[in-house]
Amino acid sequence: MNLPKLIIRLPDWVASLLALWPPCLPDHQDQMRLAIELSAKNAETGIDGPFGAAVFDDRGRLVSAGVNMVISGGSSILHAEMIAIALAQKKVGRFDLSGGGQRRYHLFSSTEPCAMCLGAIPWSGLSRLFCGARDEDARAIGFDEGAKPSDWATALNQRGVQVERDLLRWKAVAVLNRYASSGGKIYNPVFPSE
Amino acid sequence: MNLPKLIIRLPDWVASLLALWPPCLPDHQDQMRLAIELSAKNAETGIDGPFGAAVFDDRGRLVSAGVNMVISGGSSILHAEMIAIALAQKKVGRFDLSGGGQRRYHLFSSTEPCAMCLGAIPWSGLSRLFCGARDEDARAIGFDEGAKPSDWATALNQRGVQVERDLLRWKAVAVLNRYASSGGKIYNPVFPSE
Repeated sequence: MNLPKLIIRLPDWVASLLALWPPCLPDHQDQMRLAIELSAKNAETGIDGPFGAAVFDDRGRLVSAGVNMVISGGSSILHAEMIAIALAQKKVGRFDLSGGGQRRYHLFSSTEPCAMCLGAIPWSGLSRLFCGARDEDARAIGFDEGAKPSDWATALNQRGVQVERDLLRWKAVAVLNRYASSGGKIYNPVFPSE
Repeated sequence: MNLPKLIIRLPDWVASLLALWPPCLPDHQDQMRLAIELSAKNAETGIDGPFGAAVFDDRGRLVSAGVNMVISGGSSILHAEMIAIALAQKKVGRFDLSGGGQRRYHLFSSTEPCAMCLGAIPWSGLSRLFCGARDEDARAIGFDEGAKPSDWATALNQRGVQVERDLLRWKAVAVLNRYASSGGKIYNPVFPSE
């Protein structure tokens, strides 16, 4: 059997965009600004969805970035958060970013994570999650967020991952709404009927 | 900024193992046997966890395989199901396996999916999920399965994904227990403390 492979690699424009930002952003609002800018530029490509993410260490140094690549990458697992997590682990050189319980790495997500990305966070070793737009903001323009536990933020907190919501929410929502009003594709799979 | 990439590629022994099986397995039990054999062989490598998965089409043709590669691949997103889903999408050539609502592709998982893999299923376009060992069987040997909705099987069903549990459960559980009794690594990240 011929086994295919999947290469997760960010598009070239991401490196160009990151080169315009300082490599260290000590302020959480600035870190979120970067995640939101990734979401906006990704939407502007006209291919993938309006979602961006970034992992920073606790000193504000950028570790990795992610953008939604479901369509361009041809796989539904390629959400911005999944890519940012995987590439951060690649950069740091271990599958557990906590390295045995340290609180060092933080994920910034332009929109609250869907059920898959939410499930991925406790396995990653991330210690904090910062969110821009809310789950309901994504649903409002037609994206599905999946079956998340209703108390997902509390569940993450109980696993040692601190959650901060609504950081520059207005700015993140503006990107979602611009995407929707410009006719951006809402690419949820069609659920098979019986 | 130097952007790393992540290549998802199955180890060579998987291709050798698959070459020993017929390319078409019309019986669901045989399809699960293959997923369980992948889990067993993966555990025997002494590196990664005792989890395997496979995607078949509705005629029983093998589309893709997956094994847990969290340690060898250096990323916590590399669960067997995530790999099987991503590689199936690569092979079929689209991010939505349903291709607009057809019921064609089935995921066989040696153990019920964790919260991340569960969240990934509705985005994949898979129409059926077959599970061997139960969630509690994995927890019994120390693996964490994450915060799943208590009625996760119903939630999947409501999204058009039919769930069948306990297919050759005894066989899948035997692999988990052998892994635990031989001192296999339980590699949950240590949750950061406050």
